Amino acid sequence: MTAVSVPSATTSFDLGPARALSCRECGHQTPLAPEYACLECFGPLEVAYDFGRVRREDIEAGPRSIWRYRGLLPVPSNVESHPNTNPGATRLVEADRLAKALGVRKVWVKDDTGNPTHSFKDRVVGVALAAARELGFKVLACPSTGNLANAVAAAAARAGWQSVVLVPSSLEQAKILMTAVYGGNLITVDGNYDDVNRLAQELAAEHEDWAFVNVNVRPYYAEGSKTLGYEVAEQLGWRLPDQIVVPIASGSQLTKVDKAFREFGELGLVDATPYKVFGAQATGCSPVSAAFKSGQDVVTPVRPDTIARSLAIGAPADGPYVLDAVRRTNGAIEDVTDEEVVEGIRLLARTEGIFAETAGGVTVATAKKLIETGRLDPDAETVLLITGDGLKTLDALGDRVGPRANVPPSAEAVLNALKD
Amino acid sequence: MTAVSVPSATTSFDLGPARALSCRECGHQTPLAPEYACLECFGPLEVAYDFGRVRREDIEAGPRSIWRYRGLLPVPSNVESHPNTNPGATRLVEADRLAKALGVRKVWVKDDTGNPTHSFKDRVVGVALAAARELGFKVLACPSTGNLANAVAAAAARAGWQSVVLVPSSLEQAKILMTAVYGGNLITVDGNYDDVNRLAQELAAEHEDWAFVNVNVRPYYAEGSKTLGYEVAEQLGWRLPDQIVVPIASGSQLTKVDKAFREFGELGLVDATPYKVFGAQATGCSPVSAAFKSGQDVVTPVRPDTIARSLAIGAPADGPYVLDAVRRTNGAIEDVTDEEVVEGIRLLARTEGIFAETAGGVTVATAKKLIETGRLDPDAETVLLITGDGLKTLDALGDRVGPRANVPPSAEAVLNALKD
Repeated sequence: MTAVSVPSATTSFDLGPARALSCRECGHQTPLAPEYACLECFGPLEVAYDFGRVRREDIEAGPRSIWRYRGLLPVPSNVESHPNTNPGATRLVEADRLAKALGVRKVWVKDDTGNPTHSFKDRVVGVALAAARELGFKVLACPSTGNLANAVAAAAARAGWQSVVLVPSSLEQAKILMTAVYGGNLITVDGNYDDVNRLAQELAAEHEDWAFVNVNVRPYYAEGSKTLGYEVAEQLGWRLPDQIVVPIASGSQLTKVDKAFREFGELGLVDATPYKVFGAQATGCSPVSAAFKSGQDVVTPVRPDTIARSLAIGAPADGPYVLDAVRRTNGAIEDVTDEEVVEGIRLLARTEGIFAETAGGVTVATAKKLIETGRLDPDAETVLLITGDGLKTLDALGDRVGPRANVPPSAEAVLNALKD
Repeated sequence: MTAVSVPSATTSFDLGPARALSCRECGHQTPLAPEYACLECFGPLEVAYDFGRVRREDIEAGPRSIWRYRGLLPVPSNVESHPNTNPGATRLVEADRLAKALGVRKVWVKDDTGNPTHSFKDRVVGVALAAARELGFKVLACPSTGNLANAVAAAAARAGWQSVVLVPSSLEQAKILMTAVYGGNLITVDGNYDDVNRLAQELAAEHEDWAFVNVNVRPYYAEGSKTLGYEVAEQLGWRLPDQIVVPIASGSQLTKVDKAFREFGELGLVDATPYKVFGAQATGCSPVSAAFKSGQDVVTPVRPDTIARSLAIGAPADGPYVLDAVRRTNGAIEDVTDEEVVEGIRLLARTEGIFAETAGGVTVATAKKLIETGRLDPDAETVLLITGDGLKTLDALGDRVGPRANVPPSAEAVLNALKD
């Protein structure tokens, strides 16, 4: 159980049901504050709650956004009174044609491309912004390779905050433009993502009022991913799925979806039925998959080389916690080649009309591989998390996708082209 | 009143409340059928209904998609039992920062970028697919320059239908890829959009089972745009806005939003309060704006030359009906330069974190111009329709949007760049 009771006198922040920060390694508790590392052991801090009673009716009566779950998030009770992009409430698509193509009974696709900047990052940034405001930060910031940059720049614009977004200068022009258009301070850095990330750590330490959402606000930020799990369960009619496949970058999302399912069960919002969590990586950056396959508890960093850039974190912070969650629920972790990633994107698009970014291709292709090797039960129900949009990773399609034919302007030419 | 009573024995199709097709020019009625031009005068046909009683509670109890309004659309009563992309239920954003920037009291942005393929075209294609199935078509098709191509290819994929999508071969690579990925028959044609459109007319006449959504299924297809108006009114708390600004391409959308407001008033779903409809065009393709300004009833075709390609229809089919609706409601039509379009995109992005395509830039910039010239009342409430996504028209931003600075990987360099 993640809920704990800490005297509320230890904090002066209104972060809803959040009561303390708790070290995921040593369990040491500290009052709610703009902290992210344990003072005792330097382990990562996580939000601990005292939820009280949470009822389905209250959630159902809430807004059509992640704020319907505000009673389960580290955000102020008046979160809706401040401007926010209000993400969430994305589609859960009954994917019968995909299920048939995969040879399984039932598949649902959680399509997070419908979020304001078309990725799940709007969820975590929405929570980070709300918490950061309460914690006294004044600037929204991040290091990023794309989706997070878009979400931070958009959320800051909406809120009227300054933003500082750091990205590698080699980033695709589309991601640079979609960040720059929101008008914050976008700085390209001559270096790779690791260089940018180190810069963010350094700047966060120097600037008390800069909220680097995925660095010094990370404990709050990461909780936003729980809403993916909450929505899936509510949209299934208040029940947990049998199986869920989640892409792994830092690993945070997978652990938070698992946490969401556990919380819903513990709070009696759903029956605590057994579920299996499966992790998906690209082979060109598969340190967690490698650890899982070799039965290890530690994750050995790698140098990423994959078209699935949004998953290309070679040293995933939450890798060990991913291994815990997957093993505890009897799931598995698998990885797929870049070729399979593109085929995964195409399979989802052709069967369901959903255009996913490369990370979505990883999820679909991994599900396919897990089915073919008998680890996903074809008779059980499976949810696939599609967390980002194909329009942002068009380059990955290369010349493998294109028109059927180019013809002169005559009906006969069109018909001949269709016959070929 | 658009509702009429026609004996239901005259048709064998279940298209919900639709009862007949009615000529917008001569009023001649014909049974529901796969027709689009009046047999008497060749005028455009429109769906006529017998709505019966429609209650707020029934709509509110419906699905979170356009199908909550199925009792007001020409679709089978069992529309939800067939696969469809189920668009709609997009955000209505309270845009206080944009309102402040524009110097007006209250602005709402209807953000249709949240649809499955990120434009309002999913609405019209959703209705077209549902009607086409009932009318016996087997192939979903269209001529398009982008958004419609995406929506048709995705909807056909989801439904398991064949699709034939015709586009000019000069189309941007992004729009070609996003159509091709869904796996239908995408044919690029050496010619401009007018050539492609003529081809579609010819092919539709030759193939009885091909539903060219915007040609031979147009009467049904166009009704899908009513859902934009319905949603705005419902999301405002079951009331009509004072003013609404709508971009004009063929002009169909503007007339259907007006129709939606009238229907809601006539059915007693809202108080029939007065509202003004404003039209927005790019100066490089502004035939309806020109006709409005010169007080004419006819629209003289032009050769389009604007970055707002999704609005670049030089001979807008619904131009005269747009003039009627705008004049009847005491609105106005205005046009803006490509430079203003880009500024409109940037203004919306910087103030609200919403990234619109060029058509959205036209809407925002036109609203600004209408405010500055006193035609939009700054004390009244204004709704802006943002119908497509900035990720599809990145080229339009050119070099006017970019990073603040490029720096070496040092914190000092970042801080210096922020000082400049």
